[in-house]
Amino acid sequence: MEKVAKMSKRSMHLVAYLKTGPSVGHFGGWRHPEASLEMFDPRTYEHLARLFEAAKFDGIFFADALGVIETFKGSFDHYLRVGGQTSYLDPMIVLPLMARVTTHLGLGATISSSLHHPYQTARQLASLDMISNGRAAWNVVTSTTDVEAQNVGLSGIFPHDERYDRADEVLEACTALWRSWDSDPFVFDKEAGIFADPAKLHHANYEGRWIKTRGPLGVPRSPQGQPVIMQAGASDRGRQFAARWAEMIFATPGTDKETMRAHAEDMRHRLVAAGRDPSACKLLMGITPIIGETESIARERAEYLDSLQDPQSDIAYASTNSGADLTRYKTAEEIIRARGHQGSHSATETLKRKALQENMSVERASAKRQVEEALIGTPSMIADMLEDLFLSRACDGFILRPMTIPTSYEQFCRAVTPELQRRGLFRKEYSASTLRGHLQD
Amino acid sequence: MEKVAKMSKRSMHLVAYLKTGPSVGHFGGWRHPEASLEMFDPRTYEHLARLFEAAKFDGIFFADALGVIETFKGSFDHYLRVGGQTSYLDPMIVLPLMARVTTHLGLGATISSSLHHPYQTARQLASLDMISNGRAAWNVVTSTTDVEAQNVGLSGIFPHDERYDRADEVLEACTALWRSWDSDPFVFDKEAGIFADPAKLHHANYEGRWIKTRGPLGVPRSPQGQPVIMQAGASDRGRQFAARWAEMIFATPGTDKETMRAHAEDMRHRLVAAGRDPSACKLLMGITPIIGETESIARERAEYLDSLQDPQSDIAYASTNSGADLTRYKTAEEIIRARGHQGSHSATETLKRKALQENMSVERASAKRQVEEALIGTPSMIADMLEDLFLSRACDGFILRPMTIPTSYEQFCRAVTPELQRRGLFRKEYSASTLRGHLQD
Repeated sequence: MEKVAKMSKRSMHLVAYLKTGPSVGHFGGWRHPEASLEMFDPRTYEHLARLFEAAKFDGIFFADALGVIETFKGSFDHYLRVGGQTSYLDPMIVLPLMARVTTHLGLGATISSSLHHPYQTARQLASLDMISNGRAAWNVVTSTTDVEAQNVGLSGIFPHDERYDRADEVLEACTALWRSWDSDPFVFDKEAGIFADPAKLHHANYEGRWIKTRGPLGVPRSPQGQPVIMQAGASDRGRQFAARWAEMIFATPGTDKETMRAHAEDMRHRLVAAGRDPSACKLLMGITPIIGETESIARERAEYLDSLQDPQSDIAYASTNSGADLTRYKTAEEIIRARGHQGSHSATETLKRKALQENMSVERASAKRQVEEALIGTPSMIADMLEDLFLSRACDGFILRPMTIPTSYEQFCRAVTPELQRRGLFRKEYSASTLRGHLQD
Repeated sequence: MEKVAKMSKRSMHLVAYLKTGPSVGHFGGWRHPEASLEMFDPRTYEHLARLFEAAKFDGIFFADALGVIETFKGSFDHYLRVGGQTSYLDPMIVLPLMARVTTHLGLGATISSSLHHPYQTARQLASLDMISNGRAAWNVVTSTTDVEAQNVGLSGIFPHDERYDRADEVLEACTALWRSWDSDPFVFDKEAGIFADPAKLHHANYEGRWIKTRGPLGVPRSPQGQPVIMQAGASDRGRQFAARWAEMIFATPGTDKETMRAHAEDMRHRLVAAGRDPSACKLLMGITPIIGETESIARERAEYLDSLQDPQSDIAYASTNSGADLTRYKTAEEIIRARGHQGSHSATETLKRKALQENMSVERASAKRQVEEALIGTPSMIADMLEDLFLSRACDGFILRPMTIPTSYEQFCRAVTPELQRRGLFRKEYSASTLRGHLQD
């Protein structure tokens, strides 16, 4: 124990990946007999907030998209029929509820830098930081589909690198807005009739190539000053963006240890090059555990879950990620020609590599049993895997993606988190009250 | 009683006017010894939600602006120093909290049709309608200041009539989005793996002159189908807009009975011309009561409140409303030349009329002791005034604006509402569970 405690002066960070939909880590997860379909019931989210706070998680965040995806076969049919990847409520309406049933849990929203104006984003997040007393986070995405862009009246999504150039401006604009109030502007002198000191308020006057905002923000400086910035971009441009802004980055589940270590090393260099302390940005690895009381229960559970996966959902998902319908194109080159500015560059690269290595079409290369990416075992086996990844510095912690909701979350919090705590790897009590404080534990 | 009950088959409607700031109906209200300054504490809003639901109000709504106003002397200094009219939190972050501590109260947000994209507005409001089980409302404003427009990167606010032309498109786009899902799209067949029926989902494909959106909306059809639309535009173009869309409109406090009756009559004609049932849109009158156990307490309270008013706050407020700094211009014509597209046409008209009638500068004409607009008296005197206005069909109900927060709200709910209930003018219990249901009581 003593040895472990010493080795783990670094404290592990745990964040839950949520969605205002029925499935996250497994497209058929909603078919599990215990799976909840109550994605419109606010109590669903309040329950999860209490669960993760009791387990001392750093926070939760909601994945999101600004529309119903139509990449696969040019239609939303499949995604909707099999219960795929849609978000059904605006996370910014759900997060305030979760703030009110907790006191320490970090609360993150995914908001597109391409499709929202930064004044509104800055205002929403500062308001959430206020009512949660310093627990707001922003997972910055740049959006990858034309459908989302067309929902807000654009003809399509911006080119890949321009998305990040714009995102830099959006973050600069938001930062200027969040700094438009000095601390303690309020005088509240009822007798003299002085409410606030206007000298503590400043224009943002931000003017970039694409983004302009005058400010000041309507919301005074919030407890964290600004929300914690999260980011998952894996392309070169995405990592460059993350090195500048992110305080927490996360990688896809199923990434192997060596790839994670290389990512961590790459980010350390980039952070130093950006003039930041490498410990200021935590690298979290996505995990989708399948937990059983015994290893054989866990394995049989994995097989059972596998049987719930729709035979086309992997190709549909890979189509969304690469930006074009994989049933229509044989090679990555064809996809890249067809997709316009859509899709994730890193996801397409991964697919292209696999298709080349195994000499198959991208459609075949995209086939994936989702349980392949899972960590399967007893709570203590899962804890062993996480301990190894953490202590070998492949990552600073984990993003928990559920196979089924709420069971996967509950099993992890009830059985794995306590084991990590017993091993001295994870906090038993919060030592800070803000999300940024938890990350600096 | 029998007679009154018969006369009042029409049921009075009551809505509370809130702001995420320290004052509403009186700029110095925050200086009152009992006034709360806890505008960042979520419990403030939860308390008010419970208060108004216990009093069986139809609902509450938040006034809002997308920035800190700078019309008076070209600066935010005065507005901030004396505690003026700023909203400090995004109401859409606060309303979900109020939804969770109530079950019947309507919950309205002011959102600018000029400065937000309709997809995001439609999504936020549908999400609020979902988690509140059918209680969302949207007070549509078109925004009147360049400062707000510049916060979202525009050079200034659009011309007056164009603001409403755009608002028509925004409402058309939102309506198309809210209708993009048929009822009961979810199958939830775990055995067969059928989550939803994609045939129940449709593109919005809205394309106007200014506004485009593809859809479908990410949020399925919410309990009310779409939020209740509120509107306060008083200009000809504003009323035309209201006649097309609004289910609740409201008029400025201090409006006299004959003007209210004329407004009601005008709206009846406009509603019929728009092909709507005149009873589908309720006209509510803004009121700012000052209540005392005795009339003399109420009068002395009014004098006391009057002493809290900053000597320039009336001119500052009138400057915001008319769109130009009234200390710099003598006549309404000069204001209209100076303000560009800013300001409210009806507010400027009112000011112009007064300046002409009394042969004074617009600055002098804007001078107003805010208590002049108040209804002053005992609870039963206030109830008499409201009964008279209601039964004479000057209006269908009232928007309650507080002199002080939370005292004015509490006094009204504790003393006036019960009196209105005793007289058979106002509901003792909710008969519906949605806001639209309350309005059709």
